[in-house]
Amino acid sequence: MKNKQILSVLVENQAGVLSKITGLFARRAFNIDSLAVGVTEDESVSRITMIVDSGSHAAEQVEKQLHKLISVIKIKRFEYGDYIGRELIIIKLSANVKNRSDIKNICDIMNAKISDISATTMTVELADTTDRVALFQEMVTPFGIVEVARTGVIAVQKGSVHI
Amino acid sequence: MKNKQILSVLVENQAGVLSKITGLFARRAFNIDSLAVGVTEDESVSRITMIVDSGSHAAEQVEKQLHKLISVIKIKRFEYGDYIGRELIIIKLSANVKNRSDIKNICDIMNAKISDISATTMTVELADTTDRVALFQEMVTPFGIVEVARTGVIAVQKGSVHI
Repeated sequence: MKNKQILSVLVENQAGVLSKITGLFARRAFNIDSLAVGVTEDESVSRITMIVDSGSHAAEQVEKQLHKLISVIKIKRFEYGDYIGRELIIIKLSANVKNRSDIKNICDIMNAKISDISATTMTVELADTTDRVALFQEMVTPFGIVEVARTGVIAVQKGSVHI
Repeated sequence: MKNKQILSVLVENQAGVLSKITGLFARRAFNIDSLAVGVTEDESVSRITMIVDSGSHAAEQVEKQLHKLISVIKIKRFEYGDYIGRELIIIKLSANVKNRSDIKNICDIMNAKISDISATTMTVELADTTDRVALFQEMVTPFGIVEVARTGVIAVQKGSVHI
């Protein structure tokens, strides 16, 4: 995660804003590893959380460019250890009557939920830190992954401070 | 949700892909309500899940345009009731010694987690359906919302089928 920067950007919820922001990153050839866009408590405002693969100097440059966009209201760059970061994963696994309880055990141990079942599959979900989501995926991979859906990381500052 | 369409798009994980896709929506003035981008089980492939505010005819048009982009590998449009959809919310609330147990009760009832606490705040999180995430946010709003971060919806097809 050394070169990974978490940027949390508050923007006006309008068509085209996201396109301007992703365009800015594309022009500088920064790849966005994960991106989460959702409305905030104010429906006219969206929060975009991005993990950008670049050094901190590069991230500073992007931050400056973002500030120039009129739809951008506020930007926060998170420092390691300074935030509560969570992501969500849904994994559809190959499962049958023989290994269902093994999968259930891993879910119980890691506090994951079972969201669907069929004769040949089980669908499981976990919302946790990036590390634990990766560990969970690693632990269930041997059963056979049919499909994975994953959100980007979202983050809020620890303690009583807010952006 | 009548005019809301869920599109799940598998794309090559490269700089610029997201920009092309969001640009496509911007040019047609479709607003993307929520967007989740994450890697899949194959690191060279990302899955983009979008909720698009448009009628199903418009969504069909967008689907056709998306198919023309060479980085797009596969597209699935979900029908209501056909998928497991989840999103994740983190809410920082005003909290003090007097109302902490009221907040804890709501979390217990709704299966939400408490992820952080300070003398004046509590940070709570829930991964669930859009309806239950909205209900949770409604139930804790009276305590005083300091900050909200929310992922977009991610979805997998119910049962053993996959895209």
